[in-house]
Amino acid sequence: MESKTVQNLFADRMLVARRSFIREILKVTEKPDIISFAGGLPNPSTFPVQQIADAAAAVLRESGAEALQYSTTEGYLPLREFIAERYAAAKQLKVSPDELIITSGSQQGLDLIGKVFLNKGDKVLLETPSYLGALQSFSLCEPVFVHLPMQEDGVDVAALEAAVTSEWPKLFYTVPEFQNPSGISYSTERREAVAGVFRRFSTCLLVEDDPYSELRFMGEKKPPLKAFLGDSSILLGTFSKVVAPGMRLGWICANKTIIDKLVIAKQAADLHTNYFTQRVVYRHLKDNSLDTHLSSVRELYKKQRDAMVLACERSFPLDVRFTKPEGGMFLWVEMPAGSSSLDLLELALKEKVAFVPGDAFFADSRGKNTMRLSFSNCNEAAIEEGIQRLGKVMKEYLSSLSH
Amino acid sequence: MESKTVQNLFADRMLVARRSFIREILKVTEKPDIISFAGGLPNPSTFPVQQIADAAAAVLRESGAEALQYSTTEGYLPLREFIAERYAAAKQLKVSPDELIITSGSQQGLDLIGKVFLNKGDKVLLETPSYLGALQSFSLCEPVFVHLPMQEDGVDVAALEAAVTSEWPKLFYTVPEFQNPSGISYSTERREAVAGVFRRFSTCLLVEDDPYSELRFMGEKKPPLKAFLGDSSILLGTFSKVVAPGMRLGWICANKTIIDKLVIAKQAADLHTNYFTQRVVYRHLKDNSLDTHLSSVRELYKKQRDAMVLACERSFPLDVRFTKPEGGMFLWVEMPAGSSSLDLLELALKEKVAFVPGDAFFADSRGKNTMRLSFSNCNEAAIEEGIQRLGKVMKEYLSSLSH
Repeated sequence: MESKTVQNLFADRMLVARRSFIREILKVTEKPDIISFAGGLPNPSTFPVQQIADAAAAVLRESGAEALQYSTTEGYLPLREFIAERYAAAKQLKVSPDELIITSGSQQGLDLIGKVFLNKGDKVLLETPSYLGALQSFSLCEPVFVHLPMQEDGVDVAALEAAVTSEWPKLFYTVPEFQNPSGISYSTERREAVAGVFRRFSTCLLVEDDPYSELRFMGEKKPPLKAFLGDSSILLGTFSKVVAPGMRLGWICANKTIIDKLVIAKQAADLHTNYFTQRVVYRHLKDNSLDTHLSSVRELYKKQRDAMVLACERSFPLDVRFTKPEGGMFLWVEMPAGSSSLDLLELALKEKVAFVPGDAFFADSRGKNTMRLSFSNCNEAAIEEGIQRLGKVMKEYLSSLSH
Repeated sequence: MESKTVQNLFADRMLVARRSFIREILKVTEKPDIISFAGGLPNPSTFPVQQIADAAAAVLRESGAEALQYSTTEGYLPLREFIAERYAAAKQLKVSPDELIITSGSQQGLDLIGKVFLNKGDKVLLETPSYLGALQSFSLCEPVFVHLPMQEDGVDVAALEAAVTSEWPKLFYTVPEFQNPSGISYSTERREAVAGVFRRFSTCLLVEDDPYSELRFMGEKKPPLKAFLGDSSILLGTFSKVVAPGMRLGWICANKTIIDKLVIAKQAADLHTNYFTQRVVYRHLKDNSLDTHLSSVRELYKKQRDAMVLACERSFPLDVRFTKPEGGMFLWVEMPAGSSSLDLLELALKEKVAFVPGDAFFADSRGKNTMRLSFSNCNEAAIEEGIQRLGKVMKEYLSSLSH
């Protein structure tokens, strides 16, 4: 079959869909001699490898045939019970296991939510910038994205309310804690104000994506938006950042009416999430303390974050701004308007240092002067050296622009 | 949020989508005192539990941190190389690892193919009956299904050609070997004839789903349709029936132009398939002989198939027809027109025997007098006892109809 003939058969939704620019960049930047702040990767030194090995051995020894068989679409009940108990203990959030569905990573959660809610042309409210994976996933349903301005402590509530009441969006997608890419977290007051909008206007559904809140290493804990909205919002979670991402285990928490539809979409998508892995991760969580594990992850990430903030203060030009997050995995950097982080990347790669240009996280043409730096997967020495190199390149680049 | 308000937010595609009737039935029928021929489950006694345990231990010991990290969307290269080599050895099919993408079961393959090819209203040709999971998955793209009549050795080629040239379908979805649910296999001549249609009319793409061909326990091996069509067809495969289904590992084989689009859809769907499991299954396949394993699976299934065929011959009324498959997991049973296998199921459940009524496998209202019997997950004694009970109920039911 001619390549041209196949092209004619592709669905309209694929015309706009692109490969993830970030994943393409990663292929270039993750050569061993490059100091890379590009990937959004957890630090593999934190993975509980031996504990997972023990859990896998126990599951296969005690119930191997069962763990390798087909299973239910909703997911392994004891794992859903664990998640419900964790919500109660860590976030004072009362959730029933029936209000949870296990997904193949929270990325699949986004895919299923798109399928269940979005007709072509439906409007979706997004933070600016927003998580790239959500843009990719929702875009296959061909919605119209509406961008909301962000402030230091969360989305602009007046703009949110105006959009909800004038644009009639189906969904507002938010990452209120240590957002990828910006690192922004909503203050508690902002969360209350946002929830207030959704209590007043129930024509739009709030989708709260929370991969990072367990990675808070300083500052005060914040309640999830769901704590203010009860079962009228959707909350996504994942084990990718608290156990390990390669096993693709996430979940959606939503009311039973929504879960029923998600189950239908999930059956059609992959029948159920890898059951062997669900059993192994549950066994690991049952036999070991997640809190002890998370303490050591947070301690490591805090050291690396501190090293990066300090290095940026030392090495970056004064007109370059960057966030100082209290958790998560990312710093967000803003160079003066008119500069291009894509041009900077080309120069930086020559100095063997890499990052992700920020415009990939905007659904429109904004953000060309921004970039995302990940501190999770580099040791302190590499961070100091890499940021020093980056600062040098940045100074040269920005001064070349002003001439 | 009121349940009614949420209902208003659901996308149109969810209005027609139903929970899988089969999966609902399974909940009822898989009580321990029921002899169930309903589930399409591989026999868990065939699962290589100890070998998987050894493989998991080795992977975590030797490259644990890597195996638990994020990975590429295309899938683990050595696993794709293994699949390519297996195609060459078992089916004389020349395939490059670049023409393979690892999916979360072949169910996800169907989901991705739907996304990549189907606009709302596009036509999809289906066998009658067809695999329920494909109906479910494609239906979320809101296509129009066109049903093709089946003969004993495959789809009606004249009807296929007429449909391809008059309906302008995007896809023809076929399970040419030991089809679920009918157990029908295409003869080699029929495969050639079908391939001829697609060589003449390249406006439609053939999608060949092949979960069962490695489960042939008698008769002559048949070439896959892809052997006649080269890279202008799509071939789906899975480890669910040759290793174990709970690990959700399948793949799509297609030309590079199509793979590129599938990679985009896969990134948006779940980033990549469970990498830990890909590593474990690859290690298992590298360290053990798949052929030795498959020999024992085939031997077991042949015994159970023989027991079921013999029992049906003994116990079923003469006007009830059933297939005698040379492989796979299913017998397909047709009662006289006007009878209802759903009514029969109600009576059968009282006698503690279960099956799947066939109408679930038709996208329209046909097949009410048909049923699917699985022989893979019952031992010979249970098969004899269960079919005897079913035959008795069937006789009573059919004779009550004629009075």
